[in-house]
Amino acid sequence: MSDRKLLETFPNPNPQREYEILHVAPEFTSVCPKTGQPDFGTIKLTYVPNKLCVELKSYKFYLQSYRNQGVFYEDVTNRILDDLVAVLRPRSMTITTEWTPRGGLHSVITATYKRRK
Amino acid sequence: MSDRKLLETFPNPNPQREYEILHVAPEFTSVCPKTGQPDFGTIKLTYVPNKLCVELKSYKFYLQSYRNQGVFYEDVTNRILDDLVAVLRPRSMTITTEWTPRGGLHSVITATYKRRK
Amino acid sequence: MSDRKLLETFPNPNPQREYEILHVAPEFTSVCPKTGQPDFGTIKLTYVPNKLCVELKSYKFYLQSYRNQGVFYEDVTNRILDDLVAVLRPRSMTITTEWTPRGGLHSVITATYKRRK
Amino acid sequence: MSDRKLLETFPNPNPQREYEILHVAPEFTSVCPKTGQPDFGTIKLTYVPNKLCVELKSYKFYLQSYRNQGVFYEDVTNRILDDLVAVLRPRSMTITTEWTPRGGLHSVITATYKRRK
Amino acid sequence: MSDRKLLETFPNPNPQREYEILHVAPEFTSVCPKTGQPDFGTIKLTYVPNKLCVELKSYKFYLQSYRNQGVFYEDVTNRILDDLVAVLRPRSMTITTEWTPRGGLHSVITATYKRRK
Amino acid sequence: MSDRKLLETFPNPNPQREYEILHVAPEFTSVCPKTGQPDFGTIKLTYVPNKLCVELKSYKFYLQSYRNQGVFYEDVTNRILDDLVAVLRPRSMTITTEWTPRGGLHSVITATYKRRK
Amino acid sequence: MSDRKLLETFPNPNPQREYEILHVAPEFTSVCPKTGQPDFGTIKLTYVPNKLCVELKSYKFYLQSYRNQGVFYEDVTNRILDDLVAVLRPRSMTITTEWTPRGGLHSVITATYKRRK
Amino acid sequence: MSDRKLLETFPNPNPQREYEILHVAPEFTSVCPKTGQPDFGTIKLTYVPNKLCVELKSYKFYLQSYRNQGVFYEDVTNRILDDLVAVLRPRSMTITTEWTPRGGLHSVITATYKRRK
Amino acid sequence: MSDRKLLETFPNPNPQREYEILHVAPEFTSVCPKTGQPDFGTIKLTYVPNKLCVELKSYKFYLQSYRNQGVFYEDVTNRILDDLVAVLRPRSMTITTEWTPRGGLHSVITATYKRRK
Amino acid sequence: MSDRKLLETFPNPNPQREYEILHVAPEFTSVCPKTGQPDFGTIKLTYVPNKLCVELKSYKFYLQSYRNQGVFYEDVTNRILDDLVAVLRPRSMTITTEWTPRGGLHSVITATYKRRK
Repeated sequence: MSDRKLLETFPNPNPQREYEILHVAPEFTSVCPKTGQPDFGTIKLTYVPNKLCVELKSYKFYLQSYRNQGVFYEDVTNRILDDLVAVLRPRSMTITTEWTPRGGLHSVITATYKRRK
Repeated sequence: MSDRKLLETFPNPNPQREYEILHVAPEFTSVCPKTGQPDFGTIKLTYVPNKLCVELKSYKFYLQSYRNQGVFYEDVTNRILDDLVAVLRPRSMTITTEWTPRGGLHSVITATYKRRK
Repeated sequence: MSDRKLLETFPNPNPQREYEILHVAPEFTSVCPKTGQPDFGTIKLTYVPNKLCVELKSYKFYLQSYRNQGVFYEDVTNRILDDLVAVLRPRSMTITTEWTPRGGLHSVITATYKRRK
Repeated sequence: MSDRKLLETFPNPNPQREYEILHVAPEFTSVCPKTGQPDFGTIKLTYVPNKLCVELKSYKFYLQSYRNQGVFYEDVTNRILDDLVAVLRPRSMTITTEWTPRGGLHSVITATYKRRK
Repeated sequence: MSDRKLLETFPNPNPQREYEILHVAPEFTSVCPKTGQPDFGTIKLTYVPNKLCVELKSYKFYLQSYRNQGVFYEDVTNRILDDLVAVLRPRSMTITTEWTPRGGLHSVITATYKRRK
Repeated sequence: MSDRKLLETFPNPNPQREYEILHVAPEFTSVCPKTGQPDFGTIKLTYVPNKLCVELKSYKFYLQSYRNQGVFYEDVTNRILDDLVAVLRPRSMTITTEWTPRGGLHSVITATYKRRK
Repeated sequence: MSDRKLLETFPNPNPQREYEILHVAPEFTSVCPKTGQPDFGTIKLTYVPNKLCVELKSYKFYLQSYRNQGVFYEDVTNRILDDLVAVLRPRSMTITTEWTPRGGLHSVITATYKRRK
Repeated sequence: MSDRKLLETFPNPNPQREYEILHVAPEFTSVCPKTGQPDFGTIKLTYVPNKLCVELKSYKFYLQSYRNQGVFYEDVTNRILDDLVAVLRPRSMTITTEWTPRGGLHSVITATYKRRK
Repeated sequence: MSDRKLLETFPNPNPQREYEILHVAPEFTSVCPKTGQPDFGTIKLTYVPNKLCVELKSYKFYLQSYRNQGVFYEDVTNRILDDLVAVLRPRSMTITTEWTPRGGLHSVITATYKRRK
Repeated sequence: MSDRKLLETFPNPNPQREYEILHVAPEFTSVCPKTGQPDFGTIKLTYVPNKLCVELKSYKFYLQSYRNQGVFYEDVTNRILDDLVAVLRPRSMTITTEWTPRGGLHSVITATYKRRK
């Protein structure tokens, strides 16, 4: 299971402005739950903060917690989005996961959260 | 004929969220029905799942079933879209096929399905 | 003069769906009517077919018919569009012509046809 | 001063169609009015012609007339736009000037004209 | 603290036209306030001027004033935007800061100002 | 088995000069003898002809004869080299085969023939 | 410790010819023995086989055995070379390891083995 | 037949120094003698002049004289080399011809002349 | 002055093998001694170790010690080489420094040390 | 005529070491002596200094002195080499000039000086 308690935050230095933050993590690795083989991908996190920003080092440790877990592409994308939304309560957020080829196919999954107004 | 029975599915892990899945298959090959010569292309499948996702290995075998079939560019694009829509019943789906040059010309075909609301 | 009689067609395999076809021809050459020197360019044809698709080999021969003709960039772009619209009666069509540098300048011309509804 | 009298025109071969023409001139050079040092840039001219098109050779000579003039980036962009609009009376026009680095900074200026309807 | 008094201006040569200016500064460096290690990034400034344009040399010196300051990514992005808006009173402005990788992660922050009409 | 009888030749137009010919075939496909899955690769043929050159169309058909054969990377590289050396008797020849990724690994095999003097 | 017993071989199909084999593995990961943080890199294996070739799947499993081991860049490069030389007894072999940036620095290590004649 | 009389020369401005001249002509076209279809390629001429240099405009006209001739790749490469060697008497010269894909194959031919000492 | 005491070492794990280590540092900055303006560059260190390897973190701190020093391109290149040779006593070493444009010119300096045998 | 008196020098900081200096000037412009039209190119200067290095600002002014001169490609290449060799007395030096396309052809000239030992 993913461990959202690893995620730390700091106060948004400019909460009244709607601005965008992108963190690209090209060194993500997890394990395929079917074959037990490692998967490799890039995680792109884009969000418009509200009161909180994610602390970068804690976000790196959070992503590393998937290193020896078995998860499907579609599942891990939605779980990272759910964890970060729960901790940061952003104005909006998108997670894009891009995966290296398996069986000649490479995949990209994109999930978005928008706060209801 | 294409064989949509090869396509297997698994339940969408987050059916209440509208998110996008892209699978890129750069190793597609079929046969030109006019000349009997092999054609080579890349198939890009983008979809917003509803209750079902396509299982990657079965999708690879489905694409391989075209290996020795004679089909035109325009036809194969529409057939792959029809087969995947019939099996997955997605919220929306786009198939883009990109073909290597023949006679100095290279071609790209794009077909889209959107579920009526 | 361009020779639209060279263009052959085949029936659109899926006329009820609005899908897009792109053919890129990077080996176009004609002659500058002012200097008599050869011009070189890439012709990009994008269209949404209605009842007819253009047959690729005939389209190649049609483009080759410009090989020893003197035509200006702006003129050839509009003529190719006019000929293909006349023969295919598409839902919509765009011709983009991209020309190699002359006198340190390179040019791109784009013309579009949209059927009235 | 710029010399718009250098600009020659020819009749638009298809004045009833709204189509777009792009000319890219990567060999533009003028002089910085502050330091006297040469500036180097690329001028991109995009326009939808009305009754007239710009003749390419005369446009090249027009751009060369800046070779030994002192002008600021922001000024030259607006002046080229003003001169071409005055001569061609286009449906619309955009000038983009892209400049090589000075002091570690590189700049891009974009100005647009749209005819009132 | 940032020093907006370093910023100098010159009169917009064409204040009645809404046109866009982009200055890219790929040699920005500041210091991480947590670790004391240098950070490196590219600052992209895009704006539509009103009565004033920023003078390039003074803008370079303004950016250099961060060289030995400790600031977070999110903070420096908002501060540069605030300083330039205060000095230039533009029609609109966007600051994008792109940072080299730290701990396998690289970041991009984008903040925008639009004048109320 | 490979079928070197498919290879046709034509007389070298300049047999007294030592010059080099390269043919790149990016559309090669064969079958993995272990898994039965298709492999995809690019075949690069470089040679210095003696009395004979390989005819391009026959070379394309020769490469297509591997389409449904099961062969290992190392084996197919040496077999193509052996067949072409036997038919062309060149002054020298190199075959390089570059394969798309399998299991996260991609491979390149290079084999060279030099005529004894 | 690395586990060279994972490496399997198959007979070289053409042992009398000196030809070159390259396997590129862009998904290598190990752990920094100092910080406990994961390292990521690409391993390039080039060799001229003698009597044995390395079986690709077993080579992939061998590289995966480093996933949770703590090793320095310089050490892992030499150990992979030693293990493969011991198992394959090649005519020659080179290991190049390319590592993603750490602290703003990225590294490449290259070690070569040549059989004495 | 090629027409070497089109080639004009001018005296080498520094005949006592051995220096190298490269002219790249990416707009070459001739006709396939088998199919009658146009071929397209890039001609690279590299030479160390002796007493004469080739005049660029005349070289362009010389290459254009192949526009409607039927010649094979291997033949045209050797003929251009022979013509230029006959006219320029260079210290050394190389012609490389690179051809756009035909039947999925693209080709590069390289021929070299070295003056005997 | 540069501070070579910042450089730390660790024992070469395989001192009997001649292998190569490359560290690329794209975030180097110093100050121009003439203008007082910051310079930016990439430092490439390649060496064949003897008994010692350079510890990466200490090398990063060593390069940072130039941040507020005034040094010419040619001088800093030779000084980094001298310091690393003095501390590591390598079999051989090359320093390449690549600098961002100043006044429209960009520069690359390369200095090499080879131990006498 | 070129004006080598513009070139200034400074003492080589490490005259006993044979190291290499490269200065790339992508903003060179002169005038074609035949047509009066401007030419544009990149000048690459590589040299191994002896007692003197070229001062960068003076080298920039030297190159600018060609701005309104009429010179052929082959001539300007040899003249820049002659001027720099006369002023710097280097151990060796190479000038490469790369020119933007004229009439569909682009050219590269390379001249080298080596001091007799």
